[in-house]
Amino acid sequence: MTIEGTRDTESAGRIRLGMVGGGQGAFIGAVHRIAARMDGEYDLVAGAFSSQPKRALESALELGVARERAYGTYEEMVAAEARRDDGIEAVSIVTPNHLHAPIATAFLEAGIHVICDKPLTSTLEDARTLARAAHRSGLVFVLTHNYTGYPMVRQARAMVAAGKLGTVRVVQVEYPQDWLTEPLEKTGQKQATWRTDPKQSGAGGCIGDIGTHAYNLATFVTGLQLESLAAELSTFVKGRRLDDNVQILLRFKGGARGTLWASQIAPGNENGLRIRIYGDKGGLEWKQEDSNYLWFTAYGEPKQLITRGGAGSGPESARVSRIPSGHPEGYLEGFANIYAEAARAIRAAREGRTPGSEVIYPTVDDGVKGMEFIDAAVRSSKGGGVWVEV
Amino acid sequence: MTIEGTRDTESAGRIRLGMVGGGQGAFIGAVHRIAARMDGEYDLVAGAFSSQPKRALESALELGVARERAYGTYEEMVAAEARRDDGIEAVSIVTPNHLHAPIATAFLEAGIHVICDKPLTSTLEDARTLARAAHRSGLVFVLTHNYTGYPMVRQARAMVAAGKLGTVRVVQVEYPQDWLTEPLEKTGQKQATWRTDPKQSGAGGCIGDIGTHAYNLATFVTGLQLESLAAELSTFVKGRRLDDNVQILLRFKGGARGTLWASQIAPGNENGLRIRIYGDKGGLEWKQEDSNYLWFTAYGEPKQLITRGGAGSGPESARVSRIPSGHPEGYLEGFANIYAEAARAIRAAREGRTPGSEVIYPTVDDGVKGMEFIDAAVRSSKGGGVWVEV
Amino acid sequence: MTIEGTRDTESAGRIRLGMVGGGQGAFIGAVHRIAARMDGEYDLVAGAFSSQPKRALESALELGVARERAYGTYEEMVAAEARRDDGIEAVSIVTPNHLHAPIATAFLEAGIHVICDKPLTSTLEDARTLARAAHRSGLVFVLTHNYTGYPMVRQARAMVAAGKLGTVRVVQVEYPQDWLTEPLEKTGQKQATWRTDPKQSGAGGCIGDIGTHAYNLATFVTGLQLESLAAELSTFVKGRRLDDNVQILLRFKGGARGTLWASQIAPGNENGLRIRIYGDKGGLEWKQEDSNYLWFTAYGEPKQLITRGGAGSGPESARVSRIPSGHPEGYLEGFANIYAEAARAIRAAREGRTPGSEVIYPTVDDGVKGMEFIDAAVRSSKGGGVWVEV
Amino acid sequence: MTIEGTRDTESAGRIRLGMVGGGQGAFIGAVHRIAARMDGEYDLVAGAFSSQPKRALESALELGVARERAYGTYEEMVAAEARRDDGIEAVSIVTPNHLHAPIATAFLEAGIHVICDKPLTSTLEDARTLARAAHRSGLVFVLTHNYTGYPMVRQARAMVAAGKLGTVRVVQVEYPQDWLTEPLEKTGQKQATWRTDPKQSGAGGCIGDIGTHAYNLATFVTGLQLESLAAELSTFVKGRRLDDNVQILLRFKGGARGTLWASQIAPGNENGLRIRIYGDKGGLEWKQEDSNYLWFTAYGEPKQLITRGGAGSGPESARVSRIPSGHPEGYLEGFANIYAEAARAIRAAREGRTPGSEVIYPTVDDGVKGMEFIDAAVRSSKGGGVWVEV
Repeated sequence: MTIEGTRDTESAGRIRLGMVGGGQGAFIGAVHRIAARMDGEYDLVAGAFSSQPKRALESALELGVARERAYGTYEEMVAAEARRDDGIEAVSIVTPNHLHAPIATAFLEAGIHVICDKPLTSTLEDARTLARAAHRSGLVFVLTHNYTGYPMVRQARAMVAAGKLGTVRVVQVEYPQDWLTEPLEKTGQKQATWRTDPKQSGAGGCIGDIGTHAYNLATFVTGLQLESLAAELSTFVKGRRLDDNVQILLRFKGGARGTLWASQIAPGNENGLRIRIYGDKGGLEWKQEDSNYLWFTAYGEPKQLITRGGAGSGPESARVSRIPSGHPEGYLEGFANIYAEAARAIRAAREGRTPGSEVIYPTVDDGVKGMEFIDAAVRSSKGGGVWVEV
Repeated sequence: MTIEGTRDTESAGRIRLGMVGGGQGAFIGAVHRIAARMDGEYDLVAGAFSSQPKRALESALELGVARERAYGTYEEMVAAEARRDDGIEAVSIVTPNHLHAPIATAFLEAGIHVICDKPLTSTLEDARTLARAAHRSGLVFVLTHNYTGYPMVRQARAMVAAGKLGTVRVVQVEYPQDWLTEPLEKTGQKQATWRTDPKQSGAGGCIGDIGTHAYNLATFVTGLQLESLAAELSTFVKGRRLDDNVQILLRFKGGARGTLWASQIAPGNENGLRIRIYGDKGGLEWKQEDSNYLWFTAYGEPKQLITRGGAGSGPESARVSRIPSGHPEGYLEGFANIYAEAARAIRAAREGRTPGSEVIYPTVDDGVKGMEFIDAAVRSSKGGGVWVEV
Repeated sequence: MTIEGTRDTESAGRIRLGMVGGGQGAFIGAVHRIAARMDGEYDLVAGAFSSQPKRALESALELGVARERAYGTYEEMVAAEARRDDGIEAVSIVTPNHLHAPIATAFLEAGIHVICDKPLTSTLEDARTLARAAHRSGLVFVLTHNYTGYPMVRQARAMVAAGKLGTVRVVQVEYPQDWLTEPLEKTGQKQATWRTDPKQSGAGGCIGDIGTHAYNLATFVTGLQLESLAAELSTFVKGRRLDDNVQILLRFKGGARGTLWASQIAPGNENGLRIRIYGDKGGLEWKQEDSNYLWFTAYGEPKQLITRGGAGSGPESARVSRIPSGHPEGYLEGFANIYAEAARAIRAAREGRTPGSEVIYPTVDDGVKGMEFIDAAVRSSKGGGVWVEV
Repeated sequence: MTIEGTRDTESAGRIRLGMVGGGQGAFIGAVHRIAARMDGEYDLVAGAFSSQPKRALESALELGVARERAYGTYEEMVAAEARRDDGIEAVSIVTPNHLHAPIATAFLEAGIHVICDKPLTSTLEDARTLARAAHRSGLVFVLTHNYTGYPMVRQARAMVAAGKLGTVRVVQVEYPQDWLTEPLEKTGQKQATWRTDPKQSGAGGCIGDIGTHAYNLATFVTGLQLESLAAELSTFVKGRRLDDNVQILLRFKGGARGTLWASQIAPGNENGLRIRIYGDKGGLEWKQEDSNYLWFTAYGEPKQLITRGGAGSGPESARVSRIPSGHPEGYLEGFANIYAEAARAIRAAREGRTPGSEVIYPTVDDGVKGMEFIDAAVRSSKGGGVWVEV
């Protein structure tokens, strides 16, 4: 065991949380729940966990949600919770993409803060409409681009902002996976099925599922704005209805250039999200699967391996860390950091305050940008890989 | 996001948990609390968080513990909780080592299950007495040798047990750190102070703090029994009262041979716990800082990198995993697995059942073995590095 | 020391070798000489080592070349060596790119085999003319795309050819460096000066210097033919006259898709040539800086780390290895393999034989393909990154 | 291709070299020959390559050695070469260990410099006698502890000497292999046979073959002197006559402590020589299989990855490097550095000079120390693992 203190903020007055989607057999719902639990900031008290009533109820009971607050539909849930004195203050939306917009809008209209999985919606139009609704509401809207919650991603962002890399010239970002190398969706596997279905996912497959994560990460860390792109979206598995491999050239405002590769058919890759950024003064590299490390090179100096909490890592990563260096944190902690930031924002809203500038989370506007990115990539690819403005 | 389901067991009927130690400024107490929260199995409802009354109370309130169940001493806590209908069912003990024995004994005598940090006690005698008390009580006693909770440690253990390595011949285990390279204890740093103080830690410094982790890991994974050892305990920092570097030759029953190195003065190492095991059919390697990977070589075959949840990893690791492969889990998840196993044992006890054989956690007997190991190492070293029986 | 035999073919009847370029202060000339010496197959007996007569002579004497065979110009050298009974049988050409064509042509016309550094020439037209001359001559023409000499590159190629990856879908290749992050050419540094000078290098900077290596490697390993590309050639350093960063989308015949990134301005990268190839049955990865390793994943199996000479590596890598597994071979050995293959071809020519099909080296036709690639990339980039046929 | 010049010293007046041992089927002889050839400093002109006359002659002819200088025995070779005006100036001895002493003595007495494989002899007594003969002769005697030729080993040594680590406290050195996991010697494999035969190897198996390399490396890099040790020599493979696994506690003069592990039965290890050194100011780590990297941590600073020729590496490594950073050098280059240093010493002897202090190579005295180490380890182990003085 090493040396420093560990964060632990199980304060009184937990935030009352509901969830839509995420019942039995889902993946991301459970992740959201662990993330919500980790720091003791939320109590899950209500849910419409499934579109199938039986599954919805069973899931609720398993999760310790009271029978009366286990709803069959999100519409019932909004109505009932809005009426309660102890109604939920925030809702987590973890359904397939095409349902995000109507659900989020309903809760926002009922005055309930929203924590929504990504991508924001299944169409750009929905995204823009939702963003307007969110802005109108004045409520907290958090999009769970969870990779921005990793401490060393925060560290990287802080280093770029502090000029450690000088002017950014090149951004290489990638997110290879291999789980769709074969037509898994034909087996009925739930995750594969909806993610390859245009009705549920929208016009983008791989580009929407993980390409947006890569894009979001690149802009989050560098602060750059994308100007235009040339995209090659491919579908390698016969019969698949959406892209499963994505290669894109990126032009950022101000002159930086990049490439983005995302793939679901690259054997030997699990969740290989990785970013490399090069400026005129230095370079850095981070990889999700080894998330506690950040490689940094000041040009002309030896390469440094900065560890989470170790020498060379600063307050931006420390404030989203729970344990000292050398003990790995992982995906769930990074996800929990999004929930922790959301909690800070919601508490500030409770008290009529603006949260401090150190509180950072992906917003509905980031969600719109993600949808614009998907839209542009699909347009480019349909045009034969031509350059299009974003 | 990938493919499979994620564990999530926030069932009704959470276990009522208390804690002794772990107030403001402590490290390991917060780790225990996050571990207890992660799967929604426990509610922290009482505590004697500090020997300083003000700190004890403040810590309790921060943690959402009711004022009436924020105790000034563990003695008060035992007495009061034992009287309550809704008294705690289990207690986490996270004080310095020398207090483990009296506290654990008091709670056991009150019929309360114990989850105790390691090493078990500060003397071998205390350890043996405590073990007798635990056995007498019939209660669950879990020692948080948390590294045994890592999924790939479970995987390694299962592979050894399944004969994938053949007969084990060589075990190389090490745990280097660097945080005591300089006399940090002279600055008043709390963790350094008690860990280098024989009164609070016992006769072993580095050997007790992290050497025992390495030893426990080696026996946990291999199933071997230590027969004798020759130890070189060194104190490199002037004025330090306990060892800060440990090098040991190990002889296991049945003929396997090993070395154990633990150090707190090895610059460039954070928590470098690492084990390598070689048999006549294969070898494997695991490192805590990259805990989602397990290297395995069947003799004559290419080296394999087995990932948590990936191809080649089996049910023993899957049952203590929360998310699919490629998304790293870390230290807190491993620690939480100890709490999850404890919860299974405690629920079984509630229902008068014996837990299934798949439920694995370090026990009071492992704690006694750890103390025997420390005792033997200290004896050997004092004798000039002679071989001693364990 | 380990187990197997080591290659060593210092046979009688060494090949008489000359060299043009590569005198004092040059880099690649010395590499060619070590490569030629390593297996005892060549004797360096003549040279025109520099366009500056004094440097040419001094270099020759340092290298043990007889004064009478130290020439001031390649024209003198061709004339004199062609007249000698013991004249050179082969010449190594290691001048800047724009001189390759006239020099190679002159030696070919004199019946002397050619080993030529890459890229083949500075213009596509020159390349095609030279290729015709080479074919006409019937002589051996070896282009030193040295990375194809690495044993594990041969291994990768053999595995793709054997169907271990199934149908190749995706090729990601990159070659980042950082040595031109700043305007080194302004300091007069010789390597930087000619490599950024269009007159000496041709129309491509980074694309010609290292982009061609990446491209050659990709086609060598996969056996794929490039169909079209969309290239973004950038010059980030002010005042530089050629590109220093290259990002390209690749379409291969048959449907595989790729990206190529080469950069000379990516701090923290030295010679980061790296290729990743994914098919419907598996994936592999190789990195030049860790050249003795090859990562291979059969879809659904654990990732394997195949080492040079170790389990899983086959005869194609063994025949270009000199020492057993676990002792690293490097860049010079890979380069020497090109010379060793050349020696086999030249010996076969001596004896009027065709060399066996296992003898593999990059030819003048590969050189033309490299120039076509540069040409297409420059055309695409000038057109705004449009897709162009190769 | 990158930036700086490359060493290349094929000067006139090559050193005339002979070889004893190393004929067909041998491993290390070929390594010595490549090492001798790499920089163009030697001509191999004579040899007694095998104790079997036919193999001796055939080997010589394959190697381009004149028939008249292909000897049947080393005695003939000494006699004949000593008589020639163009007789050899130096001899490489690459026989099994027990023959080193008589052969080396004979050549020394004939005024011929010696380059001898390690370990120096098969008994400590022979070693001491040979050392006296070498000193008496005034000739150059180089022991090929080749790992000391690696550039980053030189770099590590320079950094320790420069105080970058402060006072060295802990040395962890290891050399695991796996090639003798099974009784390979029973198959007649030549390398396995003599290395497990006490008559040819001496009293040490693994300890002599690779343990001495690890020991030599530790003292070479740190400059420390071993004081005493406690050794556990094991033989895990049934019927094997020498140790195949070695674990040793080390006490150095001045208080540093270490462990040494060498093994030939650790599946998954090829030539895993690795050293880690920790002082009160910093730590470093080097691994033979990734020989171009050196990890360095100044206490309290981020860990640095220093690459051969890259930022942070200095003149001591540069003078034994041939190519710029980022292009890997390997085992043969390291071995060639021993030959290059020997050439510098022999040239100095030719000219009656003392070589500069930068010329570093393992000497006969290092060989004696190696034999003392083996002797002490065997004594300790026979005594039950007791501490013995070295």
